[in-house]
Amino acid sequence: MRIVDIRETAVPLKSTLTNSGFNFSEMTTSVVAVITDVMRGGKPVTGFAFNSTGRYACGAQMRARFIPRVLKAPPETLLNDAGDNFAPEKILAAMMTNEKSGGHSERSIGIGTIEVAVWDAVAKIADKPLHTVLAERYNGGKIADKVFCYVGGGWYAPGKTTQDLLDEMQTHLDAGYTMLKMKVGGMPLKDDLARVEAVKAILPKGGALAVDANCKFGRDEALDYARGLRPFGLRWFEEPCDPLDYALLAEIAGNYDAPLSTGENLYSTQDVENLVRFGGLTPARRDVIQVDPPQAYGIVQYARTLDMLARHQWPRSLLFPHGGNQMSLAIAAGFGLGGAESYPGVFGDFGGFADDARLENGYLKLSDRPGIGFEGQARLYRIMKELAG
Amino acid sequence: MRIVDIRETAVPLKSTLTNSGFNFSEMTTSVVAVITDVMRGGKPVTGFAFNSTGRYACGAQMRARFIPRVLKAPPETLLNDAGDNFAPEKILAAMMTNEKSGGHSERSIGIGTIEVAVWDAVAKIADKPLHTVLAERYNGGKIADKVFCYVGGGWYAPGKTTQDLLDEMQTHLDAGYTMLKMKVGGMPLKDDLARVEAVKAILPKGGALAVDANCKFGRDEALDYARGLRPFGLRWFEEPCDPLDYALLAEIAGNYDAPLSTGENLYSTQDVENLVRFGGLTPARRDVIQVDPPQAYGIVQYARTLDMLARHQWPRSLLFPHGGNQMSLAIAAGFGLGGAESYPGVFGDFGGFADDARLENGYLKLSDRPGIGFEGQARLYRIMKELAG
Repeated sequence: MRIVDIRETAVPLKSTLTNSGFNFSEMTTSVVAVITDVMRGGKPVTGFAFNSTGRYACGAQMRARFIPRVLKAPPETLLNDAGDNFAPEKILAAMMTNEKSGGHSERSIGIGTIEVAVWDAVAKIADKPLHTVLAERYNGGKIADKVFCYVGGGWYAPGKTTQDLLDEMQTHLDAGYTMLKMKVGGMPLKDDLARVEAVKAILPKGGALAVDANCKFGRDEALDYARGLRPFGLRWFEEPCDPLDYALLAEIAGNYDAPLSTGENLYSTQDVENLVRFGGLTPARRDVIQVDPPQAYGIVQYARTLDMLARHQWPRSLLFPHGGNQMSLAIAAGFGLGGAESYPGVFGDFGGFADDARLENGYLKLSDRPGIGFEGQARLYRIMKELAG
Repeated sequence: MRIVDIRETAVPLKSTLTNSGFNFSEMTTSVVAVITDVMRGGKPVTGFAFNSTGRYACGAQMRARFIPRVLKAPPETLLNDAGDNFAPEKILAAMMTNEKSGGHSERSIGIGTIEVAVWDAVAKIADKPLHTVLAERYNGGKIADKVFCYVGGGWYAPGKTTQDLLDEMQTHLDAGYTMLKMKVGGMPLKDDLARVEAVKAILPKGGALAVDANCKFGRDEALDYARGLRPFGLRWFEEPCDPLDYALLAEIAGNYDAPLSTGENLYSTQDVENLVRFGGLTPARRDVIQVDPPQAYGIVQYARTLDMLARHQWPRSLLFPHGGNQMSLAIAAGFGLGGAESYPGVFGDFGGFADDARLENGYLKLSDRPGIGFEGQARLYRIMKELAG
């Protein structure tokens, strides 16, 4: 049993979205295929993944370092003890050979994307959905059949009115979502608060609203927004400042009594530990941590991050992986996290879930397709199949 | 006046060195040429740089994002107010377009290398050594004629005895160095301390010794080493633990009364601010910070890091840029830092200084070649000239 080849292709996100800090027009993502010599249904089992959204493709690092390290390792050193499947933790260790300490994001995205594709293959070899494999290994065998899912939207666009925003949000509520997230920071505070107030007003009973500043604010503006947002009782206020400015984050936390959230721009377990040590976030206030596993070394490392968070008394219910895709859905389900995010229709072929996915009262039903389940996303799977050849 | 082209080539370091944590055998560096339309001596002024050592080449990111952003910017937007030279801070800003917050090392090395090559061109256009240009802009015009330089060595190698180590170190003392740095962590503590003791014994009066653990140690080992090293009165104990584990660093600092040093694996101003906020390091104990400017967004961002450090009362005399090359030498001289490091003959064509550089009593004399002065390093300049075409 061995990995025969690992292939990568860079695909533009083709998104016209703009948040308060940057736009996605130039962004690309790496799609990866891990091709094995294990046969299922007359075909080699192939694992797929992509590097989520908001960063760039990283095929050069994969081809220069990570892929050769995996392919040149003796195949038996990459298998589990029973020898009947691949061992993602050993493949991760092989990819980390001769890498210097620190400097995580330069490699964590490439390594993490390959590692998640390995998990897709592992689950297909086990003939189980990835969330089931993860639940057995990391969550005491508690197999979920659905995952809480909130919807992200409320982007800025030239000419977009508050009524346009409300129409967008109403569409999400009509689709079955009960929690909405919208962008803030793209216009003056007063106008922005009016947007938040308007969306808050259309929430049904039991609904929730979060806002996302995408790290836009410096100290004064972040504190102004904290003051302005306080009355709305939001589920969370996401990324109010630089993701590494733990001292400012702690100051904001000291001036805002509703939950904060951050973490999608942290790429290592150590960075997340610094966040919980120094950033002023607490489980008591229901603050939320949003690491993106395929961008942060993958699922094995995510499990280590969860172990570290457990030592700091963070419950899994306060973790929502970044991503809005099938990978984060399987991870949220498999580890028993608070939920996943969803961006229906906004990241081209890369956002969203299986074409037949059903949402009911804020929960997405899980499919029983083996692996991550990309085979249920026709347009995305076309790209993946072509890469596998 | 405009930048005509920016070229990159990846070159293997061809180093056989091993420290306690990793070896350099696979490592590559990106050599960059920034070609302008400014003519000097009948030829276009070209700026050069490379991405130092310990990380990998990053030409893919440069070609996909940073180079196109510079080349497509209207040329006049990249010039200084007088219009008679390039403005590195504007070129840095152009390269940062549409980059998300956080995730620094994925781009800081590529951007920093291009930015330092721009400075080489800027100094050549001004017909001054880079250290002079930097001193005028960032150090009140105090032009240095020499820089304190310590020498790094004491690497591990199969079969290398303590006598071999002493012979190596004696060569450095004979060459005129007064401060030595050696690796620790590659053998059991007791044997390692015997090595340190032996080197300490050959130091001349006024000489100094530092040790470098390259982030190898976990908590227990780091504290054991701190206890073991305490009696030697070392100039510093470098990178005792994970470079991002500020809490552990603070604990080590609380158990070790001689200076610590770290910083070469931090790639942003914010990470360095976290280090000084949370890492337990203090100027009072003469702790040392060792950011590598070409790996951390370049010289403009390094100046911002120095401004931040000044707000935290860190004197420039406690800053030693990582690198051991002409770039860090010019930066140490230009900003008036504590000194630079030197690795004579160990990083192939990329270590060391001008072929005619003279060392006297621990100080390296600066040359008056315009720019960084790579033209004085025959073997390295051959690679650069070929790239410029």
